Amino acid sequence: MPYTNRQWRLATRPVGMVKESDFELAREEIPGVADGEVLVRNLFLAFEPAQRGWLDDVKSYIPPVQIGEVMRASAVGQVVESKNPEFAEGQLVSGMLGWQEYFLTDGTPGPFGGLSRVPDGVPPQRVLSVLGGTGMTAYFGIHDVHPVKEGDNVLVSGAAGATGSVAAQIARIRGAGKVVGIAGGPDKCRWLLEEAKLDGAIDYKNEDVLKRMREEFPNGVDLYFDNVGGDILDAALLAMAEHGRVTMCGGISGYNAEKPPPGPSNIMQVVIKRLTLRGFILFDHIANAGQAIADLAAWSASGEIAVEEDIQEGFENTPKTFLRLFEGKNLGKQLIKIADAL
Amino acid sequence: MPYTNRQWRLATRPVGMVKESDFELAREEIPGVADGEVLVRNLFLAFEPAQRGWLDDVKSYIPPVQIGEVMRASAVGQVVESKNPEFAEGQLVSGMLGWQEYFLTDGTPGPFGGLSRVPDGVPPQRVLSVLGGTGMTAYFGIHDVHPVKEGDNVLVSGAAGATGSVAAQIARIRGAGKVVGIAGGPDKCRWLLEEAKLDGAIDYKNEDVLKRMREEFPNGVDLYFDNVGGDILDAALLAMAEHGRVTMCGGISGYNAEKPPPGPSNIMQVVIKRLTLRGFILFDHIANAGQAIADLAAWSASGEIAVEEDIQEGFENTPKTFLRLFEGKNLGKQLIKIADAL
Repeated sequence: MPYTNRQWRLATRPVGMVKESDFELAREEIPGVADGEVLVRNLFLAFEPAQRGWLDDVKSYIPPVQIGEVMRASAVGQVVESKNPEFAEGQLVSGMLGWQEYFLTDGTPGPFGGLSRVPDGVPPQRVLSVLGGTGMTAYFGIHDVHPVKEGDNVLVSGAAGATGSVAAQIARIRGAGKVVGIAGGPDKCRWLLEEAKLDGAIDYKNEDVLKRMREEFPNGVDLYFDNVGGDILDAALLAMAEHGRVTMCGGISGYNAEKPPPGPSNIMQVVIKRLTLRGFILFDHIANAGQAIADLAAWSASGEIAVEEDIQEGFENTPKTFLRLFEGKNLGKQLIKIADAL
Repeated sequence: MPYTNRQWRLATRPVGMVKESDFELAREEIPGVADGEVLVRNLFLAFEPAQRGWLDDVKSYIPPVQIGEVMRASAVGQVVESKNPEFAEGQLVSGMLGWQEYFLTDGTPGPFGGLSRVPDGVPPQRVLSVLGGTGMTAYFGIHDVHPVKEGDNVLVSGAAGATGSVAAQIARIRGAGKVVGIAGGPDKCRWLLEEAKLDGAIDYKNEDVLKRMREEFPNGVDLYFDNVGGDILDAALLAMAEHGRVTMCGGISGYNAEKPPPGPSNIMQVVIKRLTLRGFILFDHIANAGQAIADLAAWSASGEIAVEEDIQEGFENTPKTFLRLFEGKNLGKQLIKIADAL
């Protein structure tokens, strides 16, 4: 049976701030499902700041999205037709399904992974948030890159975002002495204190960030988990304790700059304070995904970790929802729901 | 017996580039040597880029030099009068003796260390260069901060300077696959190739630094030992291999800036390439100085490490000699000779 598949494709490479018009809506007929193939109907699409980097024609850890290609994104969907014995109709699956309504595959792992089954009893969107790439990124950052130590003074930027919110809470669970999150606006800061149960919150839109860092950490920051780069990283370098560690997860503040913005002018603090800055990406740690997901599932099920998902609706709103990340609008994981499970 | 001691004292805190007039020449009478005291006549004074940082009134790893204080510096001298049984007249000693002709002490270790005996058979100025702070800094950077690994592709900036020249050569001795130094001008680059026996040299004054880095290291730099910061650090981030290590020893390019210059705009390479940047200072490693000096003494005596010392003369030329560091004039360790040993 034929299906009409709507897709958001990359129309032009964004210059500076990404715009809705950098994507174009296209239609494609899927004539049917051949032997061995699986057709997935996408239910939720996931958005991450790192996707912005995939739009630039530069060498990076994965190839850029090409002009005319469906925008690359992880998503969760439901098998609507299967001629592959590995997948039954109705099965919930996740993978790099892209900004489209349907995903046709023969089920073999592609360059960005194949289809994964959504575990029973888990709300499907959860595999895109705390049990997905952003949750696992937080997990490996706190456990493996610079493992949190008992009593550490921990600072997390982007702390109301999908990765930061999980990282900050894992640090709390793993014995940090104090955990303070940085986020934009009083609502997010309230969430950090009341829901995520952090020890402090800094509102970078309304407070003097460096002054507040120093108030919260008079003896300095032992571990800074950075998702934003830019001025907040620069301030944090001044607020670090001697021998402090900086886990560099991302730098959303610069992702839409036309050319790389100036780096942290306080970089010599790395020498003066004998800091260690370490960058990482999820792919390098994915072999340990099983343990990460097991722990994250237990913590989110028990409520030890508060999980927030910002769910927009309507496939036509996909590019607009992507922009929310860079406008600082999302609290927790940014998702869009484009269909109901059957 | 009374002595007239000439001293260079800090007159004003430098703004931007340090100037000779930031120091003033003063005279002080030393009426005599009391019981328990030792009077040292300074022979050689040592200069390091880090001394520039001690002139700024900011919190750092050691307190700033105060206005009116003798400029802090390591030096080597000879005991000319001793009423302390620990030190005999004629003994060669080193320590933080300062920019002055005489140093009077009761011999007990001060905040920046006491007097150390110069080992027999070692030219006294050597304890300020390869066997001194800059040589040991190179040693600990290459051995402890990010230990060089067999086959590593190693890049060193400030490679004709006191620390860089030693670091690059230790990396060569310790099994690096390839060692390339960055220095300013053809004379220094020739020295790197012919005397220090490095595998390559990049002249940052006359070559496209990033292009040359990529030519020398088509597979990327595994270990970058940075003494300069600024644009060269920024370029190096682009030239690093995945999982590369950056040993951050200093940033001379920015030491005379009126305010901290912009940091490396390529800082997000730390995430993309999963780099580790680690800063250090010598003080943290000083407990292992014995092994460092033993190895450095053996390598320099055997000629495995080429040691270069740039020795100016005349106490009146002390501030001018300090400026040579920031004018890029010195090849190897910058020293000044202010008296002959008796």
